[in-house]
Amino acid sequence: MDKKYINVGLIGYGTVGKGVVKILEENKKIALRKVGKPIKVKSICDLYPIDRPELYVKKFRDIIKDPEIDLVVELIGGYEPARTIIIEALKAGKNVVTANKAVLAKYWDQIFTTAQEYQKSIYYEASVGGVIPVVQGLSEGLASEEILEIKGILNGTTNFILSEMTKNGVEYGEALKGAQKAGFAEADPSFDVNGIDTANKLAILASLAWGGWVKVKDIAVKGIADLDIDDVMISKEFGYDIKLIGSAQKTKNGIDLSVQPCLVNHENVFATVENEYNAVMIKGKASGDVLFYGKGAGQLPAASAVVSDIINLSKFIVTNTAGIVPDVVYNRKTRLKILPSGKSKAPYYLRFSVVDKPGVLSKISGILGKYKVSIASLSQPDMNEDGITQIVVTTHETSRGNLEKALKQIDATKSIVKSKTVKIKIEM
Amino acid sequence: MDKKYINVGLIGYGTVGKGVVKILEENKKIALRKVGKPIKVKSICDLYPIDRPELYVKKFRDIIKDPEIDLVVELIGGYEPARTIIIEALKAGKNVVTANKAVLAKYWDQIFTTAQEYQKSIYYEASVGGVIPVVQGLSEGLASEEILEIKGILNGTTNFILSEMTKNGVEYGEALKGAQKAGFAEADPSFDVNGIDTANKLAILASLAWGGWVKVKDIAVKGIADLDIDDVMISKEFGYDIKLIGSAQKTKNGIDLSVQPCLVNHENVFATVENEYNAVMIKGKASGDVLFYGKGAGQLPAASAVVSDIINLSKFIVTNTAGIVPDVVYNRKTRLKILPSGKSKAPYYLRFSVVDKPGVLSKISGILGKYKVSIASLSQPDMNEDGITQIVVTTHETSRGNLEKALKQIDATKSIVKSKTVKIKIEM
Repeated sequence: MDKKYINVGLIGYGTVGKGVVKILEENKKIALRKVGKPIKVKSICDLYPIDRPELYVKKFRDIIKDPEIDLVVELIGGYEPARTIIIEALKAGKNVVTANKAVLAKYWDQIFTTAQEYQKSIYYEASVGGVIPVVQGLSEGLASEEILEIKGILNGTTNFILSEMTKNGVEYGEALKGAQKAGFAEADPSFDVNGIDTANKLAILASLAWGGWVKVKDIAVKGIADLDIDDVMISKEFGYDIKLIGSAQKTKNGIDLSVQPCLVNHENVFATVENEYNAVMIKGKASGDVLFYGKGAGQLPAASAVVSDIINLSKFIVTNTAGIVPDVVYNRKTRLKILPSGKSKAPYYLRFSVVDKPGVLSKISGILGKYKVSIASLSQPDMNEDGITQIVVTTHETSRGNLEKALKQIDATKSIVKSKTVKIKIEM
Repeated sequence: MDKKYINVGLIGYGTVGKGVVKILEENKKIALRKVGKPIKVKSICDLYPIDRPELYVKKFRDIIKDPEIDLVVELIGGYEPARTIIIEALKAGKNVVTANKAVLAKYWDQIFTTAQEYQKSIYYEASVGGVIPVVQGLSEGLASEEILEIKGILNGTTNFILSEMTKNGVEYGEALKGAQKAGFAEADPSFDVNGIDTANKLAILASLAWGGWVKVKDIAVKGIADLDIDDVMISKEFGYDIKLIGSAQKTKNGIDLSVQPCLVNHENVFATVENEYNAVMIKGKASGDVLFYGKGAGQLPAASAVVSDIINLSKFIVTNTAGIVPDVVYNRKTRLKILPSGKSKAPYYLRFSVVDKPGVLSKISGILGKYKVSIASLSQPDMNEDGITQIVVTTHETSRGNLEKALKQIDATKSIVKSKTVKIKIEM
């Protein structure tokens, strides 16, 4: 390549986009040393005019069609026009960097098939785990492994909220406001708090781990928005923290995939992951547990991951070898077997709100027993109010389907149960 | 490439070498899916005949000169003939995978200059942190970062020994025997216990982080062999664990490099790293702390990292692009400024063995004060024996040079000090 620069076209100039420009400028010597040529932001596309009018273009196709641009960075997020931008850029012979987990999880097949067909690269380290290089760690660092399990705290917003609830004993709503104030939650936090963002990231990691396409609809997803502060406090006394965990486990009958709030023992490494930090544990057959930990949210950590991708990809662009070796080895014919969520097995924390009278306990334990849900511990916190008392049960490992049937029957017994029973998975 | 196989020549068929062959066989489908062609071990060289006579060659040059071999895996360890093997293999147009930290740290300049000159790749993920993909995490995952600090537990043997001493209160010698029995220490463990193995690994990480060649002689190295169980037990009561930590820190006056046993607070993440596990924390300016954790010793974890390198490199060999983009961007003209070890600053734990009489404390604190070593805490454990008592002091941050001068003067005061004062860095 006899060009003077690697020319970057940036689409989306929000918080992360601005961070990318900042890091590229501050660390231009580092980038030059690694790439051999300077990296230059040639154009920036955004909906609205920006603080660098000399770089501004209004239409993303002005970037995609610019023959001088080597690398398109997509930072607008969401499904469309992100998908169109990525696909058109690849087809136009551009290499792509994106931080967009939603578009990757939803269009995995189309995006990586197109990249392979047009022999172009798409790097996306920033899409999972913020600054943590877990995409590469999984797909290259652990390339030789039979992956048995992936477990992670993958969303900085919800982890920040849960940390606030646990540390300060505040309700979900108040904790969310705190996260928004601290810049770790957006005005509309739905994708974060309902677990979809974590599910997108888990789908990406699982697709990489097992070489097929794991879809978000394959994952049993539950968010944190209806989490009761009572359960945070009770489980804290029991020695647990509540974390939103994405989990993918290889079982004999298929891959067991879920995103849900989980109780993790204080001794568990995930319990030490606080605020905007993320952590991912990958268990391989030969490797055992490998853990990655770092900031999962925030302008600079996310931008740092994007710029690392830009630098790594630029090394290949300089030598005209980008895209020759596919980053994701994906064969659309690969079919992965997914475990039906009812067959997923785990121990659970249950909280029953019941009338305070004799016979209630025997009724509940009878129904649990009928569905083979075996009780590991039982206690009655001092929370009697208006004749309603709380019974907290932890179970031995049980199938989710059986547990749900038992709870449905218990909750239908209106004479004793006064509100929907709370059920939270216990992470071992 | 129209060959049917990626042909591997393996030099060194010890524990890790056997693990490599085992994983390549067990996971051949995974490798095939990622590489597109099968990986075949064509020849194995070892000093002695092996259990696979059909693959055995006696001379390593039979592998290097074999035109069918695409990839040479060096697993003999040590300086020679490892250096000769790697250099001759690169010059013969082979790509190389090695797990040998000693040869890399000592011949960094020659090895990577040769690799660049002959446009061949050398992968060495297994050389640092066992199965943890930290080489890649640092050089690619954090490619955009201005690296401020690297800190790690990088040696499984010493960490196993220190865990035994801490948990079971056993002396160093006994703990070493336990590690040997468990297969985590070699018959001659000198390179591990004297800190050289950790220093080799730290030199590799620091060279990668700052783009020059950090040599082992730039690192102030102290091992664990003279660690007294008394200090393990006293510091445990103070809320600290003792870990062998390799540390590289960017300061205004140069890179501060050391390997030494350190006191780490029980709250510190390094305190949770036990037995054969390793952990590396990398702090970047934009990223903040990023932590990598996993097994640093053992046959399969080490072999897993080697096979991942073989797979990743094979993807480039298949497309005839291996070595075009250098793995290590190294310019031999880069000079890194190293901080003289005397100027390194840290708080310390000190234990004085002194005669039990009035005036001793004032004498000691007087000398410490003269050299600007300021005391943070002082206590006298109940360890009086034959009129000799112990004074334990923790200091505020102090320069190592000043502290050493003070201790030299204190230890020379034979009328009060009865054995050499113990000094252990406190890791913040």
